[in-house]
Amino acid sequence: MTQPETHVHADPLRRWTEQILLAKGTPARDAERTTEVMIKADLRGVDTHGVFVCVQPYLDRIDQVRPDLQEINLEPNLQILKDQGAALLLDGDWGFGQVAAWEAMELAIERARSHGIGMVSVTRSTHLGMCAYYPLMAVDQDMIGITMTNTTPAAVPSFGRKARLGTNPMSLAAPAGKHPPFELDMATTVVSGGKVYLSHLAGKKMPEGWMVDEKGDPLTDATVGLQSGSHLPLGGAGLLHGGHKGYGLGLVVEILCGVLAGGNIGPRIVAGENYHWVAAIDVSAFQPAARFKAMMDDLIDTLHRTPTVAGHDRVLIPGELEHRTYEHRIRHGIPVSPAVLPWIEETSRKFGIDPPL
Amino acid sequence: MTQPETHVHADPLRRWTEQILLAKGTPARDAERTTEVMIKADLRGVDTHGVFVCVQPYLDRIDQVRPDLQEINLEPNLQILKDQGAALLLDGDWGFGQVAAWEAMELAIERARSHGIGMVSVTRSTHLGMCAYYPLMAVDQDMIGITMTNTTPAAVPSFGRKARLGTNPMSLAAPAGKHPPFELDMATTVVSGGKVYLSHLAGKKMPEGWMVDEKGDPLTDATVGLQSGSHLPLGGAGLLHGGHKGYGLGLVVEILCGVLAGGNIGPRIVAGENYHWVAAIDVSAFQPAARFKAMMDDLIDTLHRTPTVAGHDRVLIPGELEHRTYEHRIRHGIPVSPAVLPWIEETSRKFGIDPPL
Repeated sequence: MTQPETHVHADPLRRWTEQILLAKGTPARDAERTTEVMIKADLRGVDTHGVFVCVQPYLDRIDQVRPDLQEINLEPNLQILKDQGAALLLDGDWGFGQVAAWEAMELAIERARSHGIGMVSVTRSTHLGMCAYYPLMAVDQDMIGITMTNTTPAAVPSFGRKARLGTNPMSLAAPAGKHPPFELDMATTVVSGGKVYLSHLAGKKMPEGWMVDEKGDPLTDATVGLQSGSHLPLGGAGLLHGGHKGYGLGLVVEILCGVLAGGNIGPRIVAGENYHWVAAIDVSAFQPAARFKAMMDDLIDTLHRTPTVAGHDRVLIPGELEHRTYEHRIRHGIPVSPAVLPWIEETSRKFGIDPPL
Repeated sequence: MTQPETHVHADPLRRWTEQILLAKGTPARDAERTTEVMIKADLRGVDTHGVFVCVQPYLDRIDQVRPDLQEINLEPNLQILKDQGAALLLDGDWGFGQVAAWEAMELAIERARSHGIGMVSVTRSTHLGMCAYYPLMAVDQDMIGITMTNTTPAAVPSFGRKARLGTNPMSLAAPAGKHPPFELDMATTVVSGGKVYLSHLAGKKMPEGWMVDEKGDPLTDATVGLQSGSHLPLGGAGLLHGGHKGYGLGLVVEILCGVLAGGNIGPRIVAGENYHWVAAIDVSAFQPAARFKAMMDDLIDTLHRTPTVAGHDRVLIPGELEHRTYEHRIRHGIPVSPAVLPWIEETSRKFGIDPPL
């Protein structure tokens, strides 16, 4: 970047985003929750799921600018369709995915408290933002949290050359004691769509092994990749390095999300249509939470002490970098790319609100 | 192989194996279950978890031939230590892992029937054999089944050069209608230990990207790999192709198995010491089982129809090859490598029983 980077603090950005969602007609609590998930993504450095990347597509879906996109219903009627005590089916009624997934995790936590585990299958929902948000809600209650969501077809199955499954992310978080929580949030493809987008923005070639073209051949041009490329499953092409495992994990997400909810299967879902799977496990159903956390600390310490390969100081724990970014950005603000400044200006003007910076 | 291959049918091999376990003092039901898990592995082509690979190590552990191995307790007192309805903690009392995991899955299925989901954390257990066995028990009841187990340190964390986590397998199976069930059973490393062992037996070099040496450099000699190599996590070394995701998945298994059970963390467990995590989800808590299976069939059909890359006829579904092998071996028998014939002879003589072939 040649221009000096601008920063915005979380609070003004939160107020700004909420005002936009409220102006569109989102109920207050839903606007608050949807915004919070985006702000936490921005604070944790998951910029692909933050305000500057997500708000405009959400507005487009509310306004139905394209008929092939699933519309976002601003006043969804969230309903529990099935309830077996520890397992529930929740209808998201095409509202913000954040609203449905938040409600689902609250239900999962409540049921885990009485049954040890709670899980919620969410049908008829939309983009839920940063997957890790919801497991971290469970961590705040001394629970292990899990969230998965299927997404629009973007990845080839092993030996295939047409996209059939989404990047289908899964996230699991677990509380630690003195250390930040363990927090894994991963696409089941080699990279997420966000990584391809960042390569495209930077005008950089992608390494071989991220995407393939329509013949199944390696594709390294990120701009072409965005338009017509397909992701490879984690483990890459073929079987040699375990690509069938990444493909299998993508299918696990598909089965637990789309099929279990009785919703729609991955190869057929349209942009903006999503199904989720959310679970919470109360660690105190197994042992005192303090003991669990002490074991987590021990595990993390042992990993930190692992001798490293040349060029690396320390083995990291999933979620550690995001936690560090969060601590930094809470204090110093969220970086704003000069490229989005005109959009911020224009959007502020359109809604008649003050820009956040 | 230069000699013609011998085959043995499942029934005589089952009787032979059971007789050995009974002769050692295993209670009848436990001998039956432990044998059944091995026979099913042999039938499905998961030879690394079959009779010819597993029985001798089990005998060694029963006889405590090495003090650094966790002994197998032939008369374990399986006890439910905690019970929250949908989530239980089961003490395996160092018996056969198959016995504990079987009991755990039966409990999970029973609880899923009343609560929609059931999960069991298993502490103080040993090798459970082929992970996929237990999820397939759930599939027989029109449920989704999941099983994970931690294992002895064998894999480096990303940026590390010492093994800290096991190959930590996870398995998930789900019922289909006209098609065989979906069944994923995978180490969270690029390959399982079995693949390295097979390369060693065949005298073949491993491809780069499976293992590293003590400096973290690529290792392709399978014999050296068996002695002192470390596995790379699924996604390989570093971050470029998602190695941190495989490492993260290995940690998920570690947390759900070792830590949740309050057992022992992966970097510290000794050979033969294992902790498991088992779950069942009743699909009828969400929709009629027939509808779930019809959606699974639709998903599978759609994947089968995916255009393929050159050199491949069809996209496969996880578990499809194993199912095909099962159908073949049930009819034509399980292949027996000439290399194990002397061991079969000697073991038969030692126990005073007829060889199975």
